Amino acid sequence: MSQDRQPSVVTAGELATYLRDGRARSLSELAAAFGLSRSTVKQRVDELLGIGLVAQTGEAVSTGGRPSSQYRLQADAWLIVGIDLGATHSVVGILDLNGQVLDSVEAVIDIADGPQKVLDGAVRDIHTLLERISRSGQDLMAIGVGLPGPVEHASGRPIDPPIMPGWNGFDVPGYMASHFQVPTLVDNDVNIAALGERTIAWPDTDELVYLKVATGIGAGIIAGGTLQRGAQGTAGDIGHIRVASGARNVCRCGNVGCLEATASGAVIARELRSRGLDAADSAGVVALAQQGDIVTTQLLREAGRVIGEVLTACVSFLNPSVSVIGGRIAFAGEHLLAGIREVVYNRSMPLATRDLAIVRARTGGDAALIGASVLAAEHVLSPEFIQELVAQRAA
Amino acid sequence: MSQDRQPSVVTAGELATYLRDGRARSLSELAAAFGLSRSTVKQRVDELLGIGLVAQTGEAVSTGGRPSSQYRLQADAWLIVGIDLGATHSVVGILDLNGQVLDSVEAVIDIADGPQKVLDGAVRDIHTLLERISRSGQDLMAIGVGLPGPVEHASGRPIDPPIMPGWNGFDVPGYMASHFQVPTLVDNDVNIAALGERTIAWPDTDELVYLKVATGIGAGIIAGGTLQRGAQGTAGDIGHIRVASGARNVCRCGNVGCLEATASGAVIARELRSRGLDAADSAGVVALAQQGDIVTTQLLREAGRVIGEVLTACVSFLNPSVSVIGGRIAFAGEHLLAGIREVVYNRSMPLATRDLAIVRARTGGDAALIGASVLAAEHVLSPEFIQELVAQRAA
Repeated sequence: MSQDRQPSVVTAGELATYLRDGRARSLSELAAAFGLSRSTVKQRVDELLGIGLVAQTGEAVSTGGRPSSQYRLQADAWLIVGIDLGATHSVVGILDLNGQVLDSVEAVIDIADGPQKVLDGAVRDIHTLLERISRSGQDLMAIGVGLPGPVEHASGRPIDPPIMPGWNGFDVPGYMASHFQVPTLVDNDVNIAALGERTIAWPDTDELVYLKVATGIGAGIIAGGTLQRGAQGTAGDIGHIRVASGARNVCRCGNVGCLEATASGAVIARELRSRGLDAADSAGVVALAQQGDIVTTQLLREAGRVIGEVLTACVSFLNPSVSVIGGRIAFAGEHLLAGIREVVYNRSMPLATRDLAIVRARTGGDAALIGASVLAAEHVLSPEFIQELVAQRAA
Repeated sequence: MSQDRQPSVVTAGELATYLRDGRARSLSELAAAFGLSRSTVKQRVDELLGIGLVAQTGEAVSTGGRPSSQYRLQADAWLIVGIDLGATHSVVGILDLNGQVLDSVEAVIDIADGPQKVLDGAVRDIHTLLERISRSGQDLMAIGVGLPGPVEHASGRPIDPPIMPGWNGFDVPGYMASHFQVPTLVDNDVNIAALGERTIAWPDTDELVYLKVATGIGAGIIAGGTLQRGAQGTAGDIGHIRVASGARNVCRCGNVGCLEATASGAVIARELRSRGLDAADSAGVVALAQQGDIVTTQLLREAGRVIGEVLTACVSFLNPSVSVIGGRIAFAGEHLLAGIREVVYNRSMPLATRDLAIVRARTGGDAALIGASVLAAEHVLSPEFIQELVAQRAA
């Protein structure tokens, strides 16, 4: 045997991963791609047909010889639920495996009502949506949830979330499993926004930093192609980094000089109110900026410079190729981004910013919803998960 | 076929990865671990025996039945060369696959002599070492090189390295291949020090930041278990992050307030000289600190606080579980680390520092040498590389 070549092999899960680009392929193409026989590849394709993940797409015109069937991953064969929960909003959507929103529903909530009440609302929304798109709960494969606070990703439990009374340590996947017999993946809202933005707008980028600038400020970090959560899941929790220009600002955390106490939507709104302007919250800041109010635009540019200082440190540490600025304040015109760019490009080493794009989020308000679904889709499309489904079906 | 269970498979490369813990195992144990038949596992083991990576380790006492042979990875079957080049030093070593130094030789060099002269010296050192340990060049499998500047890891070429005239774009792997027909992997010295420290001292840690505090300041970042190089290979190039307390300090980069212009060994030495003390360089700083000079210890603590400010930002972004402080200045007593700890623990969110260790490097001066060998060993122990060797042998 040691004189033979090592036989190459592929599992159904690996084949599914290969087909995730959505392109239809013939058995011959697949056999060539893996260096395997057509019959071996056919066995794996049959397994994927058996679990409904792959569809046969009719006869392709072949170059001479018999016409050949083609196979592609059915992105909408399996349904994924995305749930984006904020302090005061809930967005529940049903998406396909590629993060395309099939339908969604928004509601005003109070996250402080606690997990049962908030999640029960989401469960009702899921049933409503399934009915609206005329699909069976049988097609639902997984649920992704984004929460506005720190989450222990492995267990899906919030950890000491500051604005979520009643949620600390709550078993979100366990609660959802009592309603739907599918896995539930949970992460914090900024992490999933980073995932969503990457999937939709920057699929070929392995180094991406997503900054959310809203009432608070947070970051989601993709490095080496992987969402980085850190040792305790607090990676990207940048609101309390000390900034040079923040010396006079007392933060709710008890320290002074925090980024969030200097450049967040809440701080800008407060400053505008102190000058007699009508800005109850981040939405008020955006409204004033869109009216061209000069005080607001000046404050936004200055906030951008402060955020740029922190992003410069991030660029030095991680050398991303894309920095996405999202969150409500990012959509208050160009001034915030102009301030960020000014500082980052001026303060960074030339090589680190040679190909660095600093851009507004393209997914807009849907980033978290899409990201929640991506988190769940990644799970069910993993070779291990698919392998288990194939084995269950075969047993 | 769709009614059969998916046959499990393992490649020789995957089996080698499994055996990397160094423990000897019987065929039955291996078969059980992979859910395969003994005969299938035996084929893969024979392939690894054939390329010399695995050895049979005599008969184990089995619990009844016939005694069974055991197999383990031979860490010293293959030799790895590590080369640690600094501005003025060269350390060349021969190491085993686990990063154990079999022998090494140090020399004083000038990196500005250019790549041919410096690398020719390393080539002579390798021949000397092979002779000293009485091993053939045939056993040499790969070379790892650490350089004191930015490196494009994929090509192994330095990119605009500030202190390495003549090295810009030089094809280090190509040059080494003209002397030894093995792959050469190149990275910057701080990245490989992070790898070395992790391998030797923190093998179970997936989130580690290594700060080198010497004449300059740099960082190596391991996140999600992977060394992060960033989009252009400048990840960890933190010397020019602006620090609040550095406003008066002009940096060689042309900006003011850079970390390196405020808290590096070079800056501390200059400050000591301006006060009439004898500190030509970082080594002079260490000597004064070890004599208990109070001005030096105060400057070290203050430098620690400044570095702590930057490390706090890193902790917020990445939430590491270990921050290793290496480089010559880290060994000038406890004052630097005390200053770092004071700021990081005071300024970070409690959850991020709950289990954060801030410790001095354990590998000391060998971190870069070991890391260079780890970089090369990872390459030759990859399933793909082993698979290719097996196929070559079988062909």
